[in-house]
Amino acid sequence: MDLQDIVSFCKRRGFIYPSSEIYGGLPGVYDYGPYGIELKNNVAAAWWKHVVHNNPDVVGIDSGIFMHPMTWKASGHLDNFDDAQMDCKKCKARIRADIMLEKYGVNADKFTVDEINQTVQKLREDKVQIKCPECGSTELTEARRFNLMVKSNLGSPTEAITDENVVYARAETCQGIYLNYKNILNSTRQKVPFGIAQIGKAFRNEIVVKQFIFRTREFEQMEMQYFVHPDDAGKVFERWRQARWDWYVEFGIDPSHMRWYEHQKLAHYASAAFDIEYDFQALGGFREVEGLHMRGDWDLSQHQKFSKEKLEYFDPVRNINFIPNVVETSAGLNRGSLVFMHEALKEEQLPNDSKRTVLKIDPRLAPVKIAVFPLLANKPALIELAEKVFRSLNKKHHCEFDDNGNIGKRYRRQDEIGTPYCVTVDFSSTGEQAENAGTVTIRNRDTMQQDRVGLDQLDQWFADKLPVL
Amino acid sequence: MDLQDIVSFCKRRGFIYPSSEIYGGLPGVYDYGPYGIELKNNVAAAWWKHVVHNNPDVVGIDSGIFMHPMTWKASGHLDNFDDAQMDCKKCKARIRADIMLEKYGVNADKFTVDEINQTVQKLREDKVQIKCPECGSTELTEARRFNLMVKSNLGSPTEAITDENVVYARAETCQGIYLNYKNILNSTRQKVPFGIAQIGKAFRNEIVVKQFIFRTREFEQMEMQYFVHPDDAGKVFERWRQARWDWYVEFGIDPSHMRWYEHQKLAHYASAAFDIEYDFQALGGFREVEGLHMRGDWDLSQHQKFSKEKLEYFDPVRNINFIPNVVETSAGLNRGSLVFMHEALKEEQLPNDSKRTVLKIDPRLAPVKIAVFPLLANKPALIELAEKVFRSLNKKHHCEFDDNGNIGKRYRRQDEIGTPYCVTVDFSSTGEQAENAGTVTIRNRDTMQQDRVGLDQLDQWFADKLPVL
Repeated sequence: MDLQDIVSFCKRRGFIYPSSEIYGGLPGVYDYGPYGIELKNNVAAAWWKHVVHNNPDVVGIDSGIFMHPMTWKASGHLDNFDDAQMDCKKCKARIRADIMLEKYGVNADKFTVDEINQTVQKLREDKVQIKCPECGSTELTEARRFNLMVKSNLGSPTEAITDENVVYARAETCQGIYLNYKNILNSTRQKVPFGIAQIGKAFRNEIVVKQFIFRTREFEQMEMQYFVHPDDAGKVFERWRQARWDWYVEFGIDPSHMRWYEHQKLAHYASAAFDIEYDFQALGGFREVEGLHMRGDWDLSQHQKFSKEKLEYFDPVRNINFIPNVVETSAGLNRGSLVFMHEALKEEQLPNDSKRTVLKIDPRLAPVKIAVFPLLANKPALIELAEKVFRSLNKKHHCEFDDNGNIGKRYRRQDEIGTPYCVTVDFSSTGEQAENAGTVTIRNRDTMQQDRVGLDQLDQWFADKLPVL
Repeated sequence: MDLQDIVSFCKRRGFIYPSSEIYGGLPGVYDYGPYGIELKNNVAAAWWKHVVHNNPDVVGIDSGIFMHPMTWKASGHLDNFDDAQMDCKKCKARIRADIMLEKYGVNADKFTVDEINQTVQKLREDKVQIKCPECGSTELTEARRFNLMVKSNLGSPTEAITDENVVYARAETCQGIYLNYKNILNSTRQKVPFGIAQIGKAFRNEIVVKQFIFRTREFEQMEMQYFVHPDDAGKVFERWRQARWDWYVEFGIDPSHMRWYEHQKLAHYASAAFDIEYDFQALGGFREVEGLHMRGDWDLSQHQKFSKEKLEYFDPVRNINFIPNVVETSAGLNRGSLVFMHEALKEEQLPNDSKRTVLKIDPRLAPVKIAVFPLLANKPALIELAEKVFRSLNKKHHCEFDDNGNIGKRYRRQDEIGTPYCVTVDFSSTGEQAENAGTVTIRNRDTMQQDRVGLDQLDQWFADKLPVL
């Protein structure tokens, strides 16, 4: 499937909608529909279980989206978190200069604005036509610095936003972790080494938003920062690299669709940076879905310097004070959800010459676990029993009830949203037919095989097939 | 307990911290610590189960925090969502005029800014001294209108925020529901009547923030909007009033600590508005924790008018087009979590003259379900077996392991964070002591009674005692 197929599938089947669509949309923001939010919640819960609950040395937090502005001075975001922007004078498109220059064979990833403008000038002197990627015009402004932090007037005494009262929406969730590191040490029994994890929204004023939910201005991160003595940081880094890779595999990603990308250019404070990349064929190839970084003591040192709060840790075994090193794993919840969907979404040719679209996703991530059908919609006895089965199974598993259309169509609907099992109540179930009396059929999404299971066995059957996360 | 006790308990025990504390704090924002986020996640999951999964006619969504600005023009927020602000010329305190006037016997709830200024002038003419609530100065500015919408420059081509490019952070989650109403109809099998639910953050530029997490600038809502033919709206309203009341009772709130407050002054579009109030003794009395409203067809009509998108519904049974009425239930996730904590937190006198602080919260909401202890921390056989028990139980229930300090202290720690059960591995458990060989003790948080349970029975014992939400 290409990207447009996935985008339209997501909208048509209630996974993801463009935001504010009735008002023409808000670029860079997406809304999750009924099946999308269930999938995203399940991915988040799977991460929380894997990173927080499975590890006694990791605890969760949930810090505010808005933080004291000094946070972003200390983190370097106010000074360095920017891209070079050019504008097309003709069509008014906003252009990210470094991405545009890639097309002319220039890697401008780390260029200053001045270097970008010099490069553009030099290319023009060499008779290379630098064109707007949208309309092809050569009338472009000079590059200028555009800071990606989203500004607000939260808490301001006036409605206007001035340099004095600006408060930023967080650009990454990890800063809320650093600011609470001391609070966690003081209020829990955690000691270094330990980790703090958080899932939450973050905001970046991306100049250009494209590629569906892959690069947006509002997005969700799943981040864990592990605080450790410098001597042990390397070992911890390798452990988490392995654990995070295994997590994608455990939930259904074929390892041959993933690879490690090792960053050669590192931030000055980092000693290692590896991305897990996934082969997003719909986006044209491998793309980052998670980054793991050895950040040294840079983060806590900066916050200690700017806040004047002592963030050193006294290690009673080593009998020394030190600022812990940070090992970070930073995953995108939106990207992650798209990875699992992209991997699972198949178009299958069926023996009878028809086709089906099926989301072969791990049952633990599936939006709906069981669909319950009465065989026919006009038989009160079937409906009554099917509703009873629905109410019983729905206590433990998120179920859907469907009595609309023929069974084949209902199967196709559930295949598309990835429901692992469909239960059909028929005349055997009610006992009106003697053969298999008191049983229902359970149809498997992936094999399309049907089993007959006794009504009194259903709870146990599904308890075995649908493990809790 | 008074409010200060609860605030300091929350910080000391890792439930809730002031935000950005190392930088002096960011007023109106709070961070949730390891136990706070588990509690809040459990409250949110209990609401989602109750409102979405238990009701085949309700689906969930997750819409963006940022929406097209026209949304807030249509909703009336840009024109009417404001408070009258006065400033103290001496101490620079920001004063909400209506709240200040309450102290002088004036209900200024619905006053315009002009009416407030006239009232202040009249009071002064009557020789009433109008004083700053912070410093007592009588030098106050005139009241002026202060709009509570939080502004941002998300998606703006320039870093500055101008009237042309301002984008607002949502002030309520329900607007994202109205904007997606048509998408849901088009992409699911829902038909009117049906509901759409959402949990998410919202932002209000409150002039004054006080009362801990009760009134903040960043907060989380749990909202459900039910779309229904006008003839059926009343019945639906009564059904949801009952359901929402019962939810609090089911999770442990004594009904005598709640009451209904019926609004007499209604918004022009509303035909009924009831609040569920909870007796927050720490805040001095009954306070709103949830509002239920009959909103008529106002919301969809406004969005139809401003977006020019047809939001009518064709009812095939009645054979008519109409704009559905909305029945709303709007609860605060932060307030809700505080309600359950306030209700459950007790100081108990014990027989041996000591006291304990215990959070007697419903096990389904408890941050940690089971704590596992080796009786002694210096016996490898005890530790090894305790770790094995921990790993086994932790697969299905969020557990903590604690080998620090004497057992009595460990019980107190778990009592404070509301852990329903503590499992102790002792010499009987390992078989070193013949009596009760192969069993552990399980201590009940509320009764403090201890049971001995066989190691091979633990899974089943807890499956019975700790039901899934």
